[in-house]
Amino acid sequence: MEKPRAVVLFSGGMDSSVVLAMAADEGYEVHAITISYGQRHRVELDCAQKTAQAIGVNRHVFLNLDSTPFEGSALTCEDVKVPVGPRPPGADPIPPTYVPARNTVFLSLALAYAESLGARDIFIGVSSVDYSGYPDCRPEFLSSFEETANLGTRSANGGERFRIHAPLLEMTKGETVTAGIRLGVDFSLTHSCYDPGPAGEPCEQCEACMLRRRGFEEAGLEDPIAGREKAALS
Amino acid sequence: MEKPRAVVLFSGGMDSSVVLAMAADEGYEVHAITISYGQRHRVELDCAQKTAQAIGVNRHVFLNLDSTPFEGSALTCEDVKVPVGPRPPGADPIPPTYVPARNTVFLSLALAYAESLGARDIFIGVSSVDYSGYPDCRPEFLSSFEETANLGTRSANGGERFRIHAPLLEMTKGETVTAGIRLGVDFSLTHSCYDPGPAGEPCEQCEACMLRRRGFEEAGLEDPIAGREKAALS
Repeated sequence: MEKPRAVVLFSGGMDSSVVLAMAADEGYEVHAITISYGQRHRVELDCAQKTAQAIGVNRHVFLNLDSTPFEGSALTCEDVKVPVGPRPPGADPIPPTYVPARNTVFLSLALAYAESLGARDIFIGVSSVDYSGYPDCRPEFLSSFEETANLGTRSANGGERFRIHAPLLEMTKGETVTAGIRLGVDFSLTHSCYDPGPAGEPCEQCEACMLRRRGFEEAGLEDPIAGREKAALS
Repeated sequence: MEKPRAVVLFSGGMDSSVVLAMAADEGYEVHAITISYGQRHRVELDCAQKTAQAIGVNRHVFLNLDSTPFEGSALTCEDVKVPVGPRPPGADPIPPTYVPARNTVFLSLALAYAESLGARDIFIGVSSVDYSGYPDCRPEFLSSFEETANLGTRSANGGERFRIHAPLLEMTKGETVTAGIRLGVDFSLTHSCYDPGPAGEPCEQCEACMLRRRGFEEAGLEDPIAGREKAALS
């Protein structure tokens, strides 16, 4: 029997690597999309390539997006600093690393690709538990996007509905690490830091690094990339 | 007083040119986005540049998208023919020129750009009257997208809501032509054909050409580009 196809949004980070492994484990023919949008942490694109190979996907597509629509974020603009350390009290609940409408754009591209492939299942590695407060990582956004997707495609005329899967949505980072280990994800290939050094070494101070550290601590495991910063500097 | 900013999705076709003129006429500071997605009728990109200059926009951004997510459409694939002439009875209500999730992707990019600019108004030139049956041109899709947009951006945390404007939604092509003439749109600069000849001359047989012709007939006007095909061939 032919496997059903799934499109997986795959950044090369810890979360989407676990989701990629989950989709493969669930028996989908996996089509991974990695999107370059002018992000500061381009090193994640190399990580994506290695991890997709390690997990074994059917096709891995890299898409280049112009960064113009995403201006003003700390992840796309050299002028906007990536915050370090815990957030000060009273800080904006949406931090400067928020990228305008990024998941709406990414899910739309995944939707287009899924429709062109005949896939109906789209996976995204967002979590609304241990996350940075981005509005486009919350369940109400994902449900609404799914509705929009089914109104704006052939599925509106009687085609099979698209389903947005966000298997990490209610999971802590610790649970994500544990799930990844169970599925054989090689976390040494994954990247999380928003503001890596020239050799890709994590800063250990941004929110993404802190969330990653918390995940491994909760899981009671050592992060295989911990200490790379020092190694790179020594 | 500063003008409010608007982002206008602008293909260089007849409809989006009228919408561009409408947004300018309504007093917005107009930021036009033209998207190249591997479309067969790339001549519309040149038309977009000329029309945006003629109407006078504040900024005109061209974005290049990889065509991979849009495979399988007659507009992006040389292997899929653009249908000519009236549709046969019983034909699929969504024709092969439908591009997978195109307006979801385009509106998402417009949304990201609008959020990065501080604009809250997004214009799109779709119509659900004289149109090709594309699901992403209908009012229920646009309302749903607007809802998704407001859940997936800073507006979900108390920011001003985004508004999707589709001023042609309930207008016939004839009404669109009349509105454009009233606003001084130079239709000789606009392009509609899905399958133009090597010099950009319209085929006069595809659905886009037929809808355009009907619009000028209804408006009781002559299309300034009518006869270009013959001119190009003679």
